[in-house]
Amino acid sequence: MNFRMVLYLLGWILNMESVFMALPCVTALIYGETAGIHFLITAVVTAIIGFLLTFKKPTNRTIHAREGFVIVALGWILMSIVGAMPFFVSGEIPHFEDALFETISGFTTTGASILTNVEGLSKCMLMWRSFSHWIGGMGVLVFMLAILPMVGGQTMHLLRAESPGPVVSKIVPKMRDSAALLYIIYIVMTIVEILLLVVTKMPLFDAITLSFGTAGTGGFAVKNSGVADYAAVHHTIITVFMILFGVNFNVYFLMIARKPKDILKNEEVRWYFIIIIAAILGITLSVHGMFDSWLEAFRHSAFQVASIITTTGYATADFNLWPMFPQLVLVLLMFIGACAGSTGGGIKVSRILISAKAVKKELYRLIHPRNVKVLKMDGKKVEHETLRSINVFLFAYTIVFVISIFIVSLDNFEFSGTFTAVAATLNNIGPGLGQVGPMSNFSEFSVLSKCVMMFDMLAGRVEIFPMLLLLVPATWKRQ
Amino acid sequence: MNFRMVLYLLGWILNMESVFMALPCVTALIYGETAGIHFLITAVVTAIIGFLLTFKKPTNRTIHAREGFVIVALGWILMSIVGAMPFFVSGEIPHFEDALFETISGFTTTGASILTNVEGLSKCMLMWRSFSHWIGGMGVLVFMLAILPMVGGQTMHLLRAESPGPVVSKIVPKMRDSAALLYIIYIVMTIVEILLLVVTKMPLFDAITLSFGTAGTGGFAVKNSGVADYAAVHHTIITVFMILFGVNFNVYFLMIARKPKDILKNEEVRWYFIIIIAAILGITLSVHGMFDSWLEAFRHSAFQVASIITTTGYATADFNLWPMFPQLVLVLLMFIGACAGSTGGGIKVSRILISAKAVKKELYRLIHPRNVKVLKMDGKKVEHETLRSINVFLFAYTIVFVISIFIVSLDNFEFSGTFTAVAATLNNIGPGLGQVGPMSNFSEFSVLSKCVMMFDMLAGRVEIFPMLLLLVPATWKRQ
Repeated sequence: MNFRMVLYLLGWILNMESVFMALPCVTALIYGETAGIHFLITAVVTAIIGFLLTFKKPTNRTIHAREGFVIVALGWILMSIVGAMPFFVSGEIPHFEDALFETISGFTTTGASILTNVEGLSKCMLMWRSFSHWIGGMGVLVFMLAILPMVGGQTMHLLRAESPGPVVSKIVPKMRDSAALLYIIYIVMTIVEILLLVVTKMPLFDAITLSFGTAGTGGFAVKNSGVADYAAVHHTIITVFMILFGVNFNVYFLMIARKPKDILKNEEVRWYFIIIIAAILGITLSVHGMFDSWLEAFRHSAFQVASIITTTGYATADFNLWPMFPQLVLVLLMFIGACAGSTGGGIKVSRILISAKAVKKELYRLIHPRNVKVLKMDGKKVEHETLRSINVFLFAYTIVFVISIFIVSLDNFEFSGTFTAVAATLNNIGPGLGQVGPMSNFSEFSVLSKCVMMFDMLAGRVEIFPMLLLLVPATWKRQ
Repeated sequence: MNFRMVLYLLGWILNMESVFMALPCVTALIYGETAGIHFLITAVVTAIIGFLLTFKKPTNRTIHAREGFVIVALGWILMSIVGAMPFFVSGEIPHFEDALFETISGFTTTGASILTNVEGLSKCMLMWRSFSHWIGGMGVLVFMLAILPMVGGQTMHLLRAESPGPVVSKIVPKMRDSAALLYIIYIVMTIVEILLLVVTKMPLFDAITLSFGTAGTGGFAVKNSGVADYAAVHHTIITVFMILFGVNFNVYFLMIARKPKDILKNEEVRWYFIIIIAAILGITLSVHGMFDSWLEAFRHSAFQVASIITTTGYATADFNLWPMFPQLVLVLLMFIGACAGSTGGGIKVSRILISAKAVKKELYRLIHPRNVKVLKMDGKKVEHETLRSINVFLFAYTIVFVISIFIVSLDNFEFSGTFTAVAATLNNIGPGLGQVGPMSNFSEFSVLSKCVMMFDMLAGRVEIFPMLLLLVPATWKRQ
């Protein structure tokens, strides 16, 4: 373990975070809130520590996979601890574990909240809370792509740990250009959403925070009623943008590169839309009696489906009160998650798709034992290594899931609440069913359960393994 | 598809079943029940059809994997349809779908019941119901091992489809001897259990039926209170035998062959016992306040753990009323299931174990990318093919599970009931939580849900793929 190098890169993360804190500071200035001072102090202290850690470039800049994973995991944890400080020090979130839970939930783009009264927070706190989604959405490490080349270290390991999902197509040969393109797409889409919301008469503050929450597929809102009380047009805009932010960003690259054929070849995106449409229709059929009109039912179904499959977590209706079928559809969408290469969480459509293809291939093999069929995705052969890594991921995911529900079950809430609290945090969604339904929150869990769910949110965000490695003693050997 | 050969072998299954019906006939004679006539008629009709199908040996006796799987799946279905006749024709179970559900539940050793008043059935029906567990436990196809060699066909495909779990060690070189040894072990263990129960003053009828249910890891009882009202000593005997019948039968082979070292090498059996002990201790700690003494709590915990992990499904306590933690432990045990090569269902300990080892190996690989570690089980290398087939099995299992809960959710029962109804049928257990708790039954589900659960019970029993193949049109092509 190259500790010096790990500290150096973590220092850069601190530097970045202190810069990010400018936004809540400006918000505090605009609204004349004294709470802004906590961001200023935190930013200054963070910058000093960051400066000390990055002052001198390490002489040995080699990092192996192990360091890469450790940096990814510690990076998210460190960001969250620092980010929680203003909430805690200001007293707006009195308990540290709650402040940390809220911040981890923010950076991991989960959106699970321990707040019972969101509107009680000052504007600058709300802005920071939503901004953390936006920062997290792109991933601390994609930001680091811009820094690492300067250091001359290896970036591939970091990208491997960070990229959500199993497949990373290389669009732009140089990683730095690739990262720059990602930022631009992400920023432009966020700005377009903000503009559309403002044009349709949403207050600017709400438009910015909700767009941050949409872009990062996070789900924090700024009202106690969440997003339920906004106009129908706002719901529609948010629905569309949630779905867009859940698409594999490769598709946007391809649009810019004007390669429409390659877009159509992308099976993951195709199935992502098929699943969305099927789920919306199924739920609309099931709940239409609960709404004034079919259109109304469709609108709410579409919002909830888009929100859950992209792992955003906004809600316009209390699906806790829906019949069991639409609830289960939503629970399934929680696990499926968005596309790989998007800001969303969950298992990812491509993993599910490749797994389903493996089953189909097996059935074929049983019928025709001598005809060997090749497993293909997007017209290309799926390598044995890809399938293997999906399997191992799913095993690890299941192990984390099972251990988590055991610990959370000690709080003795009912089955659906316990089950979906873990599902909603591990898949970075936010709300679940029962105890943690869309109109409830995570405040009533014990500190132990909150700690487990913090781990789950982080594990879900970094694709499980980096967080598991932190727990293995061998990771920390100097050798 | 060699239809002629498929029909020929199905004919032999019918012949066997008509012989099995002698037991309920004798029971009816002893208790002077007129209901016995239904068994006699069914047996005669079945024997006639069986005779017609097996009268002439097919000239083309070649069967491929495809035929093997189809025979396995259709064999269970056919056995169940015939076995359901006495229940239905006698009117003791008025609806045919219920009679079929009950019989499938019997043969697949599930033990899920649609009966609200078990004691309302005549003794011969109760005997047949429990006997179906015993027949099913060993598997229709293991019986067929004795028939197939006579035909000169290939038996390997059948064994492959039938053997529960991923690993089949070959103890006895010739399959027929191997099958004979299995029968003997199975019969002797059953007789010992019956004797022990009778010696401890359980009525003979109860002792026989409950031993059938234990041996087949089934779970049908003959009282409305299940097994709750028997003496503590009976509970203890049943606990021990449930655990013994969940052990990989290879261990008993090895005992007979006097190879104690090989027994100790068997990791699956070791972990099976570790899981059982851990679960019993965890549950005892959690529920001891609900019982008069620690010993009492331990006794009930042990019974429930043994019953669920072996997928038997008897219950001495209503764990539906327990706190969430022990409930979740039991739900986890439902999925783990017993050892491969036992009469139990579920995913099987060996599959879970190999999956967990794959995760451990992956973590090691991330830390030391250059050191390649071999995945080992029982000291031997796990072949790539074994791991692949486990993965594909788990994918297929998940797909069946998900589609099933969707359909069952249309009945709109609550989450835990819907979830565990499918878990309890697909894993061949019987009771679940909520709606299908140990003191409840499956009578209130719609016909559609019952059909889905019948499919799940069969799919669980034949390790998923044979049942899936029935749904694929290509299976039925003549070529």
